[in-house]
Amino acid sequence: MIIVFKPRATENDVNRIIAKVERMGLKTHLSKGEMSTIVGLVGDTTRVDPKQFEVDECVERIMKVSEPYKLANRAFHPEDSIIDVSGVKVGGNNLTLIAGPCSVESKEQVIEIARSIKKSGAHMLRGGAYKPRTSPYSFQGMGTQGLDILVAAKEETGLPIVSELMGEKYIDEFNDKVDLVQIGARNMQNFDLLKEVGRRIKKPVLLKRGLSNTYEEWIMSAEYIMANGNPNVILCERGIRTFETYTRNTLDLQAIPVIKRLTHLPIIIDPSHAGGKWWLVDPMAKAAVVAGADGLMIEVHNDPECALCDGPQSLKPEKYDDLIQDIKQIIKITDKTL
Amino acid sequence: MIIVFKPRATENDVNRIIAKVERMGLKTHLSKGEMSTIVGLVGDTTRVDPKQFEVDECVERIMKVSEPYKLANRAFHPEDSIIDVSGVKVGGNNLTLIAGPCSVESKEQVIEIARSIKKSGAHMLRGGAYKPRTSPYSFQGMGTQGLDILVAAKEETGLPIVSELMGEKYIDEFNDKVDLVQIGARNMQNFDLLKEVGRRIKKPVLLKRGLSNTYEEWIMSAEYIMANGNPNVILCERGIRTFETYTRNTLDLQAIPVIKRLTHLPIIIDPSHAGGKWWLVDPMAKAAVVAGADGLMIEVHNDPECALCDGPQSLKPEKYDDLIQDIKQIIKITDKTL
Amino acid sequence: MIIVFKPRATENDVNRIIAKVERMGLKTHLSKGEMSTIVGLVGDTTRVDPKQFEVDECVERIMKVSEPYKLANRAFHPEDSIIDVSGVKVGGNNLTLIAGPCSVESKEQVIEIARSIKKSGAHMLRGGAYKPRTSPYSFQGMGTQGLDILVAAKEETGLPIVSELMGEKYIDEFNDKVDLVQIGARNMQNFDLLKEVGRRIKKPVLLKRGLSNTYEEWIMSAEYIMANGNPNVILCERGIRTFETYTRNTLDLQAIPVIKRLTHLPIIIDPSHAGGKWWLVDPMAKAAVVAGADGLMIEVHNDPECALCDGPQSLKPEKYDDLIQDIKQIIKITDKTL
Amino acid sequence: MIIVFKPRATENDVNRIIAKVERMGLKTHLSKGEMSTIVGLVGDTTRVDPKQFEVDECVERIMKVSEPYKLANRAFHPEDSIIDVSGVKVGGNNLTLIAGPCSVESKEQVIEIARSIKKSGAHMLRGGAYKPRTSPYSFQGMGTQGLDILVAAKEETGLPIVSELMGEKYIDEFNDKVDLVQIGARNMQNFDLLKEVGRRIKKPVLLKRGLSNTYEEWIMSAEYIMANGNPNVILCERGIRTFETYTRNTLDLQAIPVIKRLTHLPIIIDPSHAGGKWWLVDPMAKAAVVAGADGLMIEVHNDPECALCDGPQSLKPEKYDDLIQDIKQIIKITDKTL
Repeated sequence: MIIVFKPRATENDVNRIIAKVERMGLKTHLSKGEMSTIVGLVGDTTRVDPKQFEVDECVERIMKVSEPYKLANRAFHPEDSIIDVSGVKVGGNNLTLIAGPCSVESKEQVIEIARSIKKSGAHMLRGGAYKPRTSPYSFQGMGTQGLDILVAAKEETGLPIVSELMGEKYIDEFNDKVDLVQIGARNMQNFDLLKEVGRRIKKPVLLKRGLSNTYEEWIMSAEYIMANGNPNVILCERGIRTFETYTRNTLDLQAIPVIKRLTHLPIIIDPSHAGGKWWLVDPMAKAAVVAGADGLMIEVHNDPECALCDGPQSLKPEKYDDLIQDIKQIIKITDKTL
Repeated sequence: MIIVFKPRATENDVNRIIAKVERMGLKTHLSKGEMSTIVGLVGDTTRVDPKQFEVDECVERIMKVSEPYKLANRAFHPEDSIIDVSGVKVGGNNLTLIAGPCSVESKEQVIEIARSIKKSGAHMLRGGAYKPRTSPYSFQGMGTQGLDILVAAKEETGLPIVSELMGEKYIDEFNDKVDLVQIGARNMQNFDLLKEVGRRIKKPVLLKRGLSNTYEEWIMSAEYIMANGNPNVILCERGIRTFETYTRNTLDLQAIPVIKRLTHLPIIIDPSHAGGKWWLVDPMAKAAVVAGADGLMIEVHNDPECALCDGPQSLKPEKYDDLIQDIKQIIKITDKTL
Repeated sequence: MIIVFKPRATENDVNRIIAKVERMGLKTHLSKGEMSTIVGLVGDTTRVDPKQFEVDECVERIMKVSEPYKLANRAFHPEDSIIDVSGVKVGGNNLTLIAGPCSVESKEQVIEIARSIKKSGAHMLRGGAYKPRTSPYSFQGMGTQGLDILVAAKEETGLPIVSELMGEKYIDEFNDKVDLVQIGARNMQNFDLLKEVGRRIKKPVLLKRGLSNTYEEWIMSAEYIMANGNPNVILCERGIRTFETYTRNTLDLQAIPVIKRLTHLPIIIDPSHAGGKWWLVDPMAKAAVVAGADGLMIEVHNDPECALCDGPQSLKPEKYDDLIQDIKQIIKITDKTL
Repeated sequence: MIIVFKPRATENDVNRIIAKVERMGLKTHLSKGEMSTIVGLVGDTTRVDPKQFEVDECVERIMKVSEPYKLANRAFHPEDSIIDVSGVKVGGNNLTLIAGPCSVESKEQVIEIARSIKKSGAHMLRGGAYKPRTSPYSFQGMGTQGLDILVAAKEETGLPIVSELMGEKYIDEFNDKVDLVQIGARNMQNFDLLKEVGRRIKKPVLLKRGLSNTYEEWIMSAEYIMANGNPNVILCERGIRTFETYTRNTLDLQAIPVIKRLTHLPIIIDPSHAGGKWWLVDPMAKAAVVAGADGLMIEVHNDPECALCDGPQSLKPEKYDDLIQDIKQIIKITDKTL
C-alpha cells in the first residue's frame, strides 16, 4: 500500500502518518518527489483499511500494491485447485458439463432432461427449486418438492445435482440433497449468506459473478467462503450488466484468463443467462471452451415454449447434443479432456 | 403487452399464439402491418411472463405496455404515502434528516454524535451494527452490542434509530430495537430476505437501490416487501455504478422526480455513500433537497480520521451543522418543511 | 508515477528499469517491501507514457501519482477562470443562462424564442444548425441558413449565440458567426477536430462531456484545445450513459464539485439532453444551481409537439420563465449572481 | 412503430394523433385495452421520428417494431456481404487475418513486422500513421511519412494496408495509399466524417464500435456510410467500456452472432485493444474464431518494450506465429477457410 501526500502536506503531516503506520506494526519507506511525497507500507497490509489514511486532510490518495485476497490468490497457491463434486472433478485438465432446466417443473420433465443430457455427455444436472425472480408475482420455484425431484433424477442417472441456495434457512436441506451449492449472481455480496455457506455448507460451492461486480469483488466473495471454512469454491461467469439492451447481459470471456491468472480456482461459463437468447448459447459455449473455461453450465429444456422460466434462453435436447458433439472436436485443440 | 411477430410468421402461427393468450383469460387485438403483425393483450397482464411467448420461433419480440408493479404504482395510489417512523413522518411535505456514523464503534461515540446531530436538527439516528464489507478481513460491526448502543442513544436523545438488517436471523432483534429497518444496496435483490421482511418486520423499511439496478427493479423489490405484507417502504438512492472511477459511485438525482412519478413511496438520498468523499456531501445534499427529495441520510463522525469504516465520506459534526443551517434556508423555496 | 515490480523481479530487472527511467532525465526512489519492490519516478512525468514500462515482464503495474494535465489543472491556476463570451462572463460568481431550440427550424421560430428567453433573463441563445443525428435519415439541420437565422436573432435581441461545430470545414464560418463554439458529446474525443479548434477557433469553446467519458478524459480533451492555443474552454455536463433505460442518460451532478476541484474552468449543466424528458429539466436545473454550476443550457421550444428534433425534452417558454423566476430565488443562497 | 396512450387520454386525443399519422402518409390500427389504448403505424416508418409523438401529453411512450436501418439490414439482403480489399476477401467463408504495429515508428520496424506476419499467414498489414491519443502530450503518429512507410511495406510484401483516418482532410491521401480505411472507435459517431467517408472514400471501410455504443447505433453508423455511397463496410468489435477496471475494456464476443443476425456485413474482432494486455490476445482470438468472426485484427510488435504506443497489448512475432498455427487447427471445426 502506498500513501500519496498532497503537495501542501508538511513534514509534520508526513511524520504523523508514518507514526500511525508504525503503530500498526508495519514499516515504511519514504520517497520525496518534486510534485509529491509518497510513503510505502511494508509488511502484511491485508487487514489495513485504506480509508483510515485516505480521510486525512494531508493525504491525496491511497494506492494498493498487493491484492486484498490470500486464500484464493494464485501467488500463494500456484497450481490449479481441482474440486471434487461427488466424484466429478472440476478444474485442472477437466472440462465439466452441467446442464438442465432453469426451473424444476415436474418429475417427468427433469428425468427426461437428465437422461437426455447424460446421453449427450453431461456430468452434472442443474435445476432451480428455489428461484430468484425480479417480480413477486412470477413463479418462485417448487422448493423442497423441486429438490426431491432432482434427487430422484440423480438416483435415476447418477448425475450429481446443482441447485441455487437462496437463504440460510435452507442450508441443512442443501447439505442433505445437493452436490454443488450455487450462490446466485444477486446474492454474490450477501455477506451474511457467504459466511454461513463457508461455515456450514459441506459441499463445494458454485459462486456466480454479480451482474456488476469486478473481478476483485468476486474473488473477495470467494475469499469470504474460504476464510469461513469451505475451500471448495468454483467461480461462474454469467454475463455482466452493460449499456447494451439487445442482449440480456454481456458475456465477459476475458474473465477466463484473468481469473486463472489471479486465482487457482476453477471457472465455468453460463452462456444461457448471459445473452438470454438460445441462439447465442452455441457460439458462446464453444468460444468459452477454446478460451480455457473449466466447464459450461447450460440450460436445456425439452419444451422451451412451455417453460415456466427463461424459456427463450434454453436449448432443446437435440441442440444441446449437437453442441456437445462439436465440443468433443474442439476440445482436441485445448489441454482439456471430457 | 404486445406480441410482435416475425415477418415470416404464418397465419397459423398467429392464430396459435392468439389461442394461447385467450386460454389465459385475456383478450387480444390483432393488427397487421406491411412489415409485421402485432397482437395486443387486453386484460391484467401482471402475471403473464413475456418469456412464454418470446421463445416461440414466430415471435420477434414482446413489448410491455404497463408497469409490472401494482402496490407501489402511483397510477393506483395517486397521493403520496406518508410513512410514520416512531412518530417521525417521512414523505409528503416533510423533509426528514437522518444522520450518524457509518459503524457503531462505542457508546461514547454514538451518544456524542446523536446529541450533536439532534442539536443540528436531525430527526433520526443511523448507525451500522452489522456491516456489509467487501473483505472478510475488514471490521464487520459490533452486532448486538452495537444495536444496544443505538438503543441507549435513542433513550438519551429520543431519536428513532435506523440500522441495516443483513439476514433473516436478526429479524426478531430488529423488530425489538430498530425503528427503521434498512435493506442495503447489495441485498436489494436478496429476494428471500425481502419476502421475510415483508412478512415479519413490523417496522417501516428503508430500501436502498442496488448499485446497478434500474428504477423498475428497485420498485419491484419494494413490491416484494409490500406484496408480502409490509406497505411501509421508503426508497433510498445511494449512487450507482458507472465507468467513472474518481468517485465511488455516481449519484443519480434524476431518481427523485422519476420515482415520485412512478410510485407514491417517499425517496431519500444518501450523498455520503454515493461519492465516497466528504466534500461532495454538502453540494449533493443541497441539490437533492431542491430536486424534491423527502429526506437525507448523511454520515456524521466526530473523528473521521479514526473511523473504522468509511471515514473519508463522513462529515464532522460542525460541518453537518453548517449544512443543516443552509438547508433551512433552501427549504423555503421548496414545498417541504423541516 | 510509481512502478510496482512483480514478486519474481530480480535485482537486475529493477536496475534495468531504473536505468531506463534515468535515461529519460528523471530521478528515482527505490522502496523494497516484503511483497514487492516499487520505484517512484521523480520529475515531470507528464510526457512519460506508462505503457513503456507496463510492458516489461518484470513489472506488475504502473500507478500515476499526478494528473496528466497541466493547463487545465487547478493546482497550477488556483483562481477560477472567467471566460468572456462576447461580453457575457462565464465562471466565477456568474450564473450564465443559455437557452434556445435544439434545432433551428425557421427565422420566426428562433426570433420568437430568442425574445422570449431574453425576457425571462437568459444571457445567450443556443440553436443547432448542423445536427449530429444517430440516423442518416433524420433531419440533419439547416446548415448555413440556420446559422444566419441565429445571427439575425442575435441582431434582434443582442444575445450572443452558441452552436455546435461538427467538422473542421465549418471553422471559418463559425469564427464569423458564432460567439461560443460547441463541441458535441460525440466529438469529445475527435482529436483532430480538438486540435484545429485549439489552433483556429478564435471564440470560446463549450466542450460537452462524452456519453461515457471519465472526468480525466474530459479534462484531457480541454487540455488538447488549450495546448493548441485556445485557453477559453467551458465544460458542459449533459448526462452519461448507464444501464438505466427509463431516462435517456444519467445526469452526473457530482461532476460540478469534482470539476471545480480538479480544474479552474467553468462548468455548466445541460439537463435537457441528460434525462430526455421535459419534466426532469426543472428539478435538475435547480439542483445544478445549488450544487454550484456556473450555468445552465436548456432547450426551449415554442411548439415542442412539432419540433423537428428532441421535442420531448424541450420546455415551453412559459415553463422556462417559471424556472428562471424560481432560480432567481434559489440563487440567493449561493455565491452566484444572475 | 406503436404509440401507447396514457390511461387519461381522451378519444379526441387519440383521433388527433391518428390524423397526424395519416397526414404523414401512413395507415393506423387502433387497439383499446383495459389499461391503455395503442395505435400501430402501418407503412414505412424509417423516416418517422418517434419524438414527434412522444412529446404529446396524451402519449405514454413510443415503441419501435422494425429496425431503423435498411441498407445494412439482413432482412433485405439475406446473403453475407463479401468485401474485396485489394484482392483479399472479407466475409462469407473467409477468415481474414490483419496484423501489425499499433503505430508506425520506422521503415525497418514495419517491414520486419510485415515480413514476419506474412510468413505466419496474415492477409493484411495494419499500422497507425495518425494516432488518436487521449493526451495532447503523447506521440501523435508519423502522419504522411508513416503512411509512406506502410506503402513501402506493401510493395515489399504485397499485403494490403489498413490505417485509421482521423479527419476529412486526409481523405485524398487515404484514397491514394490505403487499402482498407479504418474509422476509430472514438469517431464512430463523428457523423460529419461518416458522411464524407461514404461520399468520397473509394476503398472499403473498417468501422470500429464505439466504446459505449449499442449494436443499433453501430449499425446506424454503417448505414450512414452506406447511405452516402460506400456499401463496403466491415464492422470491428474492439471492446466496450464497463465498470471493470482490471482490463482496459470488456470484449463483447456476443457481438459476432448478433451482428451476423441483424446485418449482412462482415465482423472482425480486435482482441488487442479490448483487454489491453498481451496475454489476453491468444485466448480471445481463438474464442472469436470459434464464435464465427470473419477476421482478427491483432497488434504485433517486434519490440513491445520500446513501442511508442500500446506496447503492453502487442504480441511478439513468434507469439503471433504460434497463435496463427493454432488457429489453422481450430478453423477446421468452423465453416471458414484461411
